[in-house]
Amino acid sequence: VTISELTERELVARIQQHLPPPPPWMLVGIGDDAAVVEPERNRLEVLSVDALVEDVHFERRFTPPHAIGHRALAVNLSDLAAMGATPRLALLSFALPPSFACEEFDGLIAGLAALAARYRLHVAGGNLARSPGPLVIDITIVGTVKRRQVLTRSGARPGDEIYVSGTIGAAAAGLQILKTRVTPAPTEGARDTEGESCVRRYLYPEPRVRLGLLLGRNRAASACVDLSDGLADGVVQIAHASRVGVTIDGAAIPIDPGARTVFGAGGPAGCDAIAESISRGDDYELLFAVRPRTQGRLRAARRHGDVQLTRVGVCTANPEIVLQSGSGDVRTLTRGYGHFR
Amino acid sequence: VTISELTERELVARIQQHLPPPPPWMLVGIGDDAAVVEPERNRLEVLSVDALVEDVHFERRFTPPHAIGHRALAVNLSDLAAMGATPRLALLSFALPPSFACEEFDGLIAGLAALAARYRLHVAGGNLARSPGPLVIDITIVGTVKRRQVLTRSGARPGDEIYVSGTIGAAAAGLQILKTRVTPAPTEGARDTEGESCVRRYLYPEPRVRLGLLLGRNRAASACVDLSDGLADGVVQIAHASRVGVTIDGAAIPIDPGARTVFGAGGPAGCDAIAESISRGDDYELLFAVRPRTQGRLRAARRHGDVQLTRVGVCTANPEIVLQSGSGDVRTLTRGYGHFR
Repeated sequence: VTISELTERELVARIQQHLPPPPPWMLVGIGDDAAVVEPERNRLEVLSVDALVEDVHFERRFTPPHAIGHRALAVNLSDLAAMGATPRLALLSFALPPSFACEEFDGLIAGLAALAARYRLHVAGGNLARSPGPLVIDITIVGTVKRRQVLTRSGARPGDEIYVSGTIGAAAAGLQILKTRVTPAPTEGARDTEGESCVRRYLYPEPRVRLGLLLGRNRAASACVDLSDGLADGVVQIAHASRVGVTIDGAAIPIDPGARTVFGAGGPAGCDAIAESISRGDDYELLFAVRPRTQGRLRAARRHGDVQLTRVGVCTANPEIVLQSGSGDVRTLTRGYGHFR
Repeated sequence: VTISELTERELVARIQQHLPPPPPWMLVGIGDDAAVVEPERNRLEVLSVDALVEDVHFERRFTPPHAIGHRALAVNLSDLAAMGATPRLALLSFALPPSFACEEFDGLIAGLAALAARYRLHVAGGNLARSPGPLVIDITIVGTVKRRQVLTRSGARPGDEIYVSGTIGAAAAGLQILKTRVTPAPTEGARDTEGESCVRRYLYPEPRVRLGLLLGRNRAASACVDLSDGLADGVVQIAHASRVGVTIDGAAIPIDPGARTVFGAGGPAGCDAIAESISRGDDYELLFAVRPRTQGRLRAARRHGDVQLTRVGVCTANPEIVLQSGSGDVRTLTRGYGHFR
């Protein structure tokens, strides 16, 4: 059974089955011309929108609907995390191919709803349209933050140290594995467990919402960005917005062991693995700057954040953005200036 | 030159050229991970999202980019109007085919920005993605409203009278003209002027923002909905949400003269014109209920609203939704229960 046999109302009802009851601040929810909500007192609002387009951001061939739903929301939660914001509500806008199976539709909603529930994010409304082409999942997310706790990209100063959460390259390695593997079932051995962990990181990225909140609350970070487009891009974003240079110590970057295996085989001594891992996206880790005098504030984030934090570089007055490799090589990083493709 | 030759940054810069400077309440605008805004004091927030998908909601063959941009925002403004809300900000999410010409992109933005400026609506952020298929214009809109001035669909009671703004069927007639005409240039004569007016109503719908505000401010309307999916659907929406019946007087419906010409030719005495005009969408007029005792409150809306208001029916305790034609025929209206296509 495909969704072409259901009415829009029936599809909305299927979505609502996965959602908790609306909170008291949602005065008008799904079903009217628009949602009406009460703003949170003494808080600023943080708004973002992000879309996943089939065959551009994911392939249905190897991405289960449940993972598509999870990822579509995770990329949005990651944007809020990078601002130090608490998630509040989302609006869903789907363009659906009529051939989409009802089972797939339910899976997508289940994946999305499960992640939303974990962050107490409420679906306030949305729109369902037919697509004559790709599946498009567009999500608008709204969160709140106290005025003094906003994390932007532009607050870094020369001397601030650059940190990154988690490990880098795992999701890209997972995507590589999914694209090239013939059989979906994993085989035995340590390397395959590593591979499966990378696949999981690609399919089910964990937005660093808790870490973003901790960094904002005690003002530990002077600038912050999420790594949707890769670490190299994130470094350039902070450098440009803050008008500083950055020197990254290649040897310090926490390249994921799985990424070392997947990307390192062909090249010399892990060097390819670094280049590939920092230039590919989908990590959804946070990259942030910390004033040298306030490094102590990272302790709370370290204790409660459940994720490793690694110092990978430093901001400089010299506006160059460079990557120093272990062997002493220096490479200038540039932002993904590629054409719109 | 197509957009595939530009970077995402360059496309964002092209958008910003059409936008006014950000207002003081927009603390972080385009360019960070998310927008940060200060909520308006003592106001509720009204949020909605709506998408226009190429070949589903419009055809590029006869819809100029400027009109696509206008319509994409107009359908969202219309949702706010139906809630009695003042527009505040929008987030834009586009999925763009790489073959889209830069000139077309600029035209789309110009059409959208011109309408936004008229309603002091500010673009707070967005997302640009590539589309391997149709052009998709997804817009999230946020407005504000005082608590006692919210218009919902559910407040109508038996005895309330049903009104509609403007005329019905003009946009559908305009679409019909665009679909069937061979040469784009209009020919001479009174009928063609009428036709051109319908085409304009389709390409450049005017959201009834001002009327919605007036109806909310003095609490003239007990329920309100916008007619994106046609008058028949709007009547059913109010009836279902308010748990009342509605009797519509077919002879009273302000069918647009252009719609009478386009849809009435083949059928008997304007009857087809009514059926076609109320079942097709794209009108973006407001349909609303008014308590009999408070009809006087419509005076302000009539004086300042710049649009005619016509009484077309009445709410009943009997839950049936009927259309009485001039000749005494009675037809039961049902909502657009069509499959998701």
